[in-house]
Amino acid sequence: MFYVSGVEGNSCVLSEEESWHCMKVLRLSEGDAIDLTDGTGNFYHGRLARIHHKGCLVEILSVKAVPPNPWPIHIAIAPTKNIDRFEWFLEKVTEIGIEEITPLFCEHSEREVLKLQRLEKVLVSATKQSLKAWLPILNEPARFRDFITGNFAGQKFIGYCETGDESELHDLYREKSSALVLIGPEGDFSKNEVAMAIKSGFTPISLGSSRLRTETAGIVACHTISLLNRMPG
Amino acid sequence: MFYVSGVEGNSCVLSEEESWHCMKVLRLSEGDAIDLTDGTGNFYHGRLARIHHKGCLVEILSVKAVPPNPWPIHIAIAPTKNIDRFEWFLEKVTEIGIEEITPLFCEHSEREVLKLQRLEKVLVSATKQSLKAWLPILNEPARFRDFITGNFAGQKFIGYCETGDESELHDLYREKSSALVLIGPEGDFSKNEVAMAIKSGFTPISLGSSRLRTETAGIVACHTISLLNRMPG
Repeated sequence: MFYVSGVEGNSCVLSEEESWHCMKVLRLSEGDAIDLTDGTGNFYHGRLARIHHKGCLVEILSVKAVPPNPWPIHIAIAPTKNIDRFEWFLEKVTEIGIEEITPLFCEHSEREVLKLQRLEKVLVSATKQSLKAWLPILNEPARFRDFITGNFAGQKFIGYCETGDESELHDLYREKSSALVLIGPEGDFSKNEVAMAIKSGFTPISLGSSRLRTETAGIVACHTISLLNRMPG
Repeated sequence: MFYVSGVEGNSCVLSEEESWHCMKVLRLSEGDAIDLTDGTGNFYHGRLARIHHKGCLVEILSVKAVPPNPWPIHIAIAPTKNIDRFEWFLEKVTEIGIEEITPLFCEHSEREVLKLQRLEKVLVSATKQSLKAWLPILNEPARFRDFITGNFAGQKFIGYCETGDESELHDLYREKSSALVLIGPEGDFSKNEVAMAIKSGFTPISLGSSRLRTETAGIVACHTISLLNRMPG
């Protein structure tokens, strides 16, 4: 599966990186069949019309449109100190299925710089690997205070480790609706942040009795919602 | 939280590694309070009676026994070609909660050598990090053919990507019972392996319509069972 950022008419040109993969890794030749996703809901089947290291030309033979998830999942999460853990989170939620991710800078954040271009590559790679027609949207990082006062349709939750007497996400999430879940940094959200979020309409939730790392909490929240929407009743 | 492999009477000696962590990373002193897990169901609270780089002595002041999970989860999974992915799987399922893991060598396995000692360290580290009283059991690697004919109490599943018309794990798993789930390598189980497993009483399952990597499938299977056992009804 290849990724192409846009198809116009009956052909498209692969990026330099995808062309390299096509020529050097898969060693495809002109005339070979090729499958693509544009990350905005379309699968394409085509054939290689011209091989070129700067940009292979693909003739599109058929298109299959995939409708978007009617109950989109948005996770706003503090990037981990160790960036590998954050990239792992991105890869795993893309495989499981997520629509939108916002990196969140919080009071206890240990990381305040992010290379979005690199993270975008992780998302593209996972989208291709897991054969998805939709590439998750990665938003610009936001400060916690600014972010929580934004407008969101759907249910809003804040994952919080401190008190332990919150209800679990699976008890509070009403199936078949869009959801936004906030996941805090290694040092958790501050009490002040939790109070602000509650004031802005977020419901505090637990993800179970286990103490989860930031990236694990993000994966677990995403899978919980995804699973509940696939369960009967 | 520290890990100690055994406590006898009212004291225990930390391993060299744990002693190093205690002295050099946390810079604890004699008399300082210390919390431990023995990985077999006990949390200990104690105090450092003697600092020594070869083995700190801990005086145990109190014990709290944690009962084992009455519905243990056992995942037998093909180690990934890239060992980082397998270690990630181990860390994540330990955080989420798992009782037993068996590395499985299959027809399409791309890895046939495993350093168990290193993997054991990942489990110990994740057990401490997630404050668990039980360390998951990591079995010796087994060949698929030998493994599936073994005796298991509980439900037996085989995750399989190929056909796509299997029921999902969450539809077939009967809550509050122990379960064994087989997860295949990057190239999936062979048709022959699936047939053998079915003959040995395993039920083929899907983990949803997304194509998941091996380690993601393992995490998702573990979390699905864990979540179902926490849900009412």
